Amino acid sequence: MKGEISIVLVEPSHPGNIGAAARAMKVMGLQRLVLVNPTHFPDAQATAMAAGADDLLAGAVVCNSLSTAIKDYQLIFGTSARSRSLSLPVLTPHELGEKVTEAAAQGVNCAIIFGRESSGLSNAELASCHYQVQIPSCAEFSSLNLAAAVQVISYECRLGALANNSSLDNNGAKTLQLAKASEVQHLTERIRFLLASNQFTQDQHHLASIMLKVQHIFGKAQLESAEVAILEGILSIYDRCHDR
Amino acid sequence: MKGEISIVLVEPSHPGNIGAAARAMKVMGLQRLVLVNPTHFPDAQATAMAAGADDLLAGAVVCNSLSTAIKDYQLIFGTSARSRSLSLPVLTPHELGEKVTEAAAQGVNCAIIFGRESSGLSNAELASCHYQVQIPSCAEFSSLNLAAAVQVISYECRLGALANNSSLDNNGAKTLQLAKASEVQHLTERIRFLLASNQFTQDQHHLASIMLKVQHIFGKAQLESAEVAILEGILSIYDRCHDR
Repeated sequence: MKGEISIVLVEPSHPGNIGAAARAMKVMGLQRLVLVNPTHFPDAQATAMAAGADDLLAGAVVCNSLSTAIKDYQLIFGTSARSRSLSLPVLTPHELGEKVTEAAAQGVNCAIIFGRESSGLSNAELASCHYQVQIPSCAEFSSLNLAAAVQVISYECRLGALANNSSLDNNGAKTLQLAKASEVQHLTERIRFLLASNQFTQDQHHLASIMLKVQHIFGKAQLESAEVAILEGILSIYDRCHDR
Repeated sequence: MKGEISIVLVEPSHPGNIGAAARAMKVMGLQRLVLVNPTHFPDAQATAMAAGADDLLAGAVVCNSLSTAIKDYQLIFGTSARSRSLSLPVLTPHELGEKVTEAAAQGVNCAIIFGRESSGLSNAELASCHYQVQIPSCAEFSSLNLAAAVQVISYECRLGALANNSSLDNNGAKTLQLAKASEVQHLTERIRFLLASNQFTQDQHHLASIMLKVQHIFGKAQLESAEVAILEGILSIYDRCHDR
């Protein structure tokens, strides 16, 4: 069965951009739009800019946090222009297009996340991604419009889908059982609790920074559900040693 | 000397599209905008949508016919979604990006022409082109916005320019400090010891199989030295809980 490819917009402030993004998606064959805390939605300007893609707006899922938005997705891509302290693997839009359509063809649910018009995605938001996607731009003027960014990425998804189509049957290919974001989050929270309740550090900033790095490690590993279970199992030793 | 790559908009009716097209161009490093009989120009909406690319608007050349607009160009590309009676050679956007940047690098002046929002380019206008460029889209909904089309084409021009510019040095690239195999092995052994000494399982085969999976997770993560240190730190909590 085919997985989904969803576009997730985090706190878009201009409803026109939401509409233009929906149109960009639909032209390239993408269907699922997820909005995290949009400033104005629904909105007449969004509908006007959608220009026929209003079915995507009508079907858009609105969430009040990014973690809720992505909890059922298995492979998460975050678009960000800036170099970050986190060393997420960085993909070009073309590589994203290939990877995301290949994964979806194998039944993996994929989310591609776009940040705010003003400030993009935070480090913490990027940490929940498996990959960072950088759209090339001019060093002197890199202010890509949100809907334009969605257009470029949707276009590359289309190219990926067209390229994948030639070998659509995936017989013999291993089906990935990637963990859902919510499973990885449970694991991460358990480690956070472990560290906090054992006075690993008193410094909240230090703890947050360590947890960001732990999240990053799990992201890079693209954990499968079974692997999350193994790590949870290892953590359970700690419970036993407390019970004694 | 380097040739120019100009974007030519034929009879654009929405000034917002002119501004958004200018922004799309500038982000991807294109500078020269030519307008053939724009309905409204200059216009406040164009300036608003340009969002910092107003220098391109100020420098835009306005002509009253396409033939005047392209008279000094040597290589002309016409964007059109429809199949035409003309049998112009058809390029993908990616092929256009390669061809146009190669030509410009050789001093050839190139123009890429976009038609009206409503009806695109006429057959007569396409006939003045050397190539037709087709942006792939969904058969059921192929209504690509004008500025979005300019964004996709400008993006491919940028990719072409980057590919041509083989001497791009990578000064900004972060050097990865991947952990040595011995560091990862130390970490893995520590986990093995932890599991074995806590009767996590009595079955040696089971233990071996779990450790293989743990190793696999670390391999996928391509751990850096600093990340190994963090994981070692987390494991140290178990030592403390034993010491009590």
